[in-house]
Amino acid sequence: MDVIESSPVQGNNLDPWYDSYAGRTAGLAASEVRALFAVASRPEVVSLAGGMPFVSAIPEDLLAGSIQKVMAERGPVALQYGSGQGVPALREQILEVMALEGIRGSADDVVVTTGSQHALELFSKLFLDPGDVVIAEGPSYVTAMVIFNSYQADVDHVPLDEHGLIPGALREHIARLKAAGRRIKFLYTVPNFHNPAGVTLTWERRLEILEICKSEGILVLEDNPYGLLYFNERPPAAMRSIEEEGVVYLGTFSKTLAPGLRVGWALAPHAIREKLILANEAAVLSPSSFTQLIVSEYLNQADWRAQIDTFRGIYRERKEAMVAALQEHLPELSWTNPTGGFYVWVTLPEPLDSKAMLPRAVKELVAYTPGTAFYADENGRQNMRLSFCYPTPEQIKLGIRRLANVVTGELDLLDTFAGTGELSQLRLARGAFPPSDLR
Amino acid sequence: MDVIESSPVQGNNLDPWYDSYAGRTAGLAASEVRALFAVASRPEVVSLAGGMPFVSAIPEDLLAGSIQKVMAERGPVALQYGSGQGVPALREQILEVMALEGIRGSADDVVVTTGSQHALELFSKLFLDPGDVVIAEGPSYVTAMVIFNSYQADVDHVPLDEHGLIPGALREHIARLKAAGRRIKFLYTVPNFHNPAGVTLTWERRLEILEICKSEGILVLEDNPYGLLYFNERPPAAMRSIEEEGVVYLGTFSKTLAPGLRVGWALAPHAIREKLILANEAAVLSPSSFTQLIVSEYLNQADWRAQIDTFRGIYRERKEAMVAALQEHLPELSWTNPTGGFYVWVTLPEPLDSKAMLPRAVKELVAYTPGTAFYADENGRQNMRLSFCYPTPEQIKLGIRRLANVVTGELDLLDTFAGTGELSQLRLARGAFPPSDLR
Repeated sequence: MDVIESSPVQGNNLDPWYDSYAGRTAGLAASEVRALFAVASRPEVVSLAGGMPFVSAIPEDLLAGSIQKVMAERGPVALQYGSGQGVPALREQILEVMALEGIRGSADDVVVTTGSQHALELFSKLFLDPGDVVIAEGPSYVTAMVIFNSYQADVDHVPLDEHGLIPGALREHIARLKAAGRRIKFLYTVPNFHNPAGVTLTWERRLEILEICKSEGILVLEDNPYGLLYFNERPPAAMRSIEEEGVVYLGTFSKTLAPGLRVGWALAPHAIREKLILANEAAVLSPSSFTQLIVSEYLNQADWRAQIDTFRGIYRERKEAMVAALQEHLPELSWTNPTGGFYVWVTLPEPLDSKAMLPRAVKELVAYTPGTAFYADENGRQNMRLSFCYPTPEQIKLGIRRLANVVTGELDLLDTFAGTGELSQLRLARGAFPPSDLR
Repeated sequence: MDVIESSPVQGNNLDPWYDSYAGRTAGLAASEVRALFAVASRPEVVSLAGGMPFVSAIPEDLLAGSIQKVMAERGPVALQYGSGQGVPALREQILEVMALEGIRGSADDVVVTTGSQHALELFSKLFLDPGDVVIAEGPSYVTAMVIFNSYQADVDHVPLDEHGLIPGALREHIARLKAAGRRIKFLYTVPNFHNPAGVTLTWERRLEILEICKSEGILVLEDNPYGLLYFNERPPAAMRSIEEEGVVYLGTFSKTLAPGLRVGWALAPHAIREKLILANEAAVLSPSSFTQLIVSEYLNQADWRAQIDTFRGIYRERKEAMVAALQEHLPELSWTNPTGGFYVWVTLPEPLDSKAMLPRAVKELVAYTPGTAFYADENGRQNMRLSFCYPTPEQIKLGIRRLANVVTGELDLLDTFAGTGELSQLRLARGAFPPSDLR
């Protein structure tokens, strides 16, 4: 007990096993986005925070036929362990899905995973030693960074603009990291409808970034959950369509069908693919045969392309509602204007702090994700991620009106206290004690 | 390419990323059991190798009603992301399942995982640093050891006998390891119907082992997939029923319902539970809501205890068929006589080598798992694991007859070569070149 009581315990001084955890466990902290799920679930709050797809748009009967057929015709296979690589027929169908983004590959190089999140975890387990560096956009997907940190790697953020990751900045960062003797393991990138930034990498930049990574010997981890959810024009073809040996590609059915099934995949060069299978077997023996067969049967018998079109229409309408409401109620802010996906990235006027402002927003019954969640460093206080995927256009309008009240209120407050010196103290106190349901 | 070509590449000299893998990836090798799945799937082979439950014993309609109800009444929840801890109602029901083995706990301390294999993976990620030691029975569950190795921990085998892990030996091993300055992280144990040894830890030994671990400050990881599959008498109550703070308990629906759903769980002390949730969220965001709700509804509406009774009857009959066939055809061997579960552990007469004999067995159309798969060291050549869970009693009898031919043939061969000096060479060559489908 002596050791335990003198340890730098964080929030838990009653853990007799505190001293037994692996070094990596210190890096495994609750994310800010996680804490927000609790808030988002209260019905009176308009949540622009979560990234839940609008699965209610799936007709009740759409999956029922597939499920019945699987149980009637392939029950014993669906209920049994399967292979660590995934169901062969589904891997063939995944090739069809990826072909829509210009990718040609072999079903042999596809590994089915428990959502593409698990592919990200398995890949990180295979590649990351403590002290390694992962290059990622700044901002970047929060739960990817949680994984990288859990393997004790550092995230180096390369800035993006409205055309995506900036190649010149990437070059500079690589040079600086190499000069410092750091070991760069891979570039993690979300080229289409970026989470959280909402921007899409241009074709020219895809070519340039692949060229840079190839010449520097850096593997590219291309995470593409939103590529098929474009509003009007398709995004450029996937980076994996240009380069095979240097890209590991991640895809998922979570956004084009349903996340509750937990079916995603990786497409990887042979040797990496083989190790992903071994890691998958160690982690879960095999991904669920049941949900894999259901997705496979769904792709067989349903008009899945039409269902994706339905989703695209819904998300386009919601994005337009959000941007219109921002223009109407918050013209003093700036934001990205995504051409697909789930997210708008908002920049607040200079003195505002999205993290400090959040408790007030929740009091006004609107939630968002503060930009700080998407940076491994101290950046992002001037940003927030607004999700338009789940709330209806009406809820979005209401949410933005409420957000406008919050922003106006904060700006008034700042005006009042401006120059009095009490402002910074006030904000510090607020940041230190968010309401308990936000922790 | 220079680095790559001069590297100690194992079976893959065309991997441009060979030099980029994490240190832990070297420990992630294909298991012998994995290789056997390929063999087992050929219909002409009687496989006594795999550990697949006999899911065909599940009536076709048994799950259909639950699935329909979930989709009709809770579709949008089933298809959506859920919590990283798992569905609350299911966690309550898991308490009822565990109560059958004497466990009392709180649903708050249950974490639902993608099969209990994933609980094993997450727990290992939280606890294992390179060079740590995991104490396990010798022999032990193969894919647990794959995980421990993948986190660069060493497995220290403590022998078992027909009453399970030997407490005196455990004491000695702990003393020796501590004297050598090794860091013991936990005891991994399968107390009921051990995989692969088929033995069950007595009540007295459960108490003694918990006492030893408590006084030595060693956490116990109790893995109990087979506990409810006893043939006649219940096994002693779970170790977790005796000790709460020092035991992390793993359970699963893979053997009492169906592995294709991938629903298992951990019951852990508060602080560890909290970290398991974070690790689960990082790895898969949330386990499948869809399969969790189906299991929950099944537990609600089906007579699941009766279904477990059905499984128990089937496995009892198969075990009896296997033991009777061994008595009839292979009286020169010795074996454990399990009172539940899936496995019989066979010891071959002194000169025979189960690993070297395997290619011949497959040629004779019978497969088993060589004992070497279940040891982290060089032990097990004199053992084999025979599974009676999946083949019918008739197939089991046929398989044992074929196995008797193989054993007799090997013994004849040994007699022929005895004293000629050619024997060891012959066996070495055979060990080095198994047929390609066994690699």
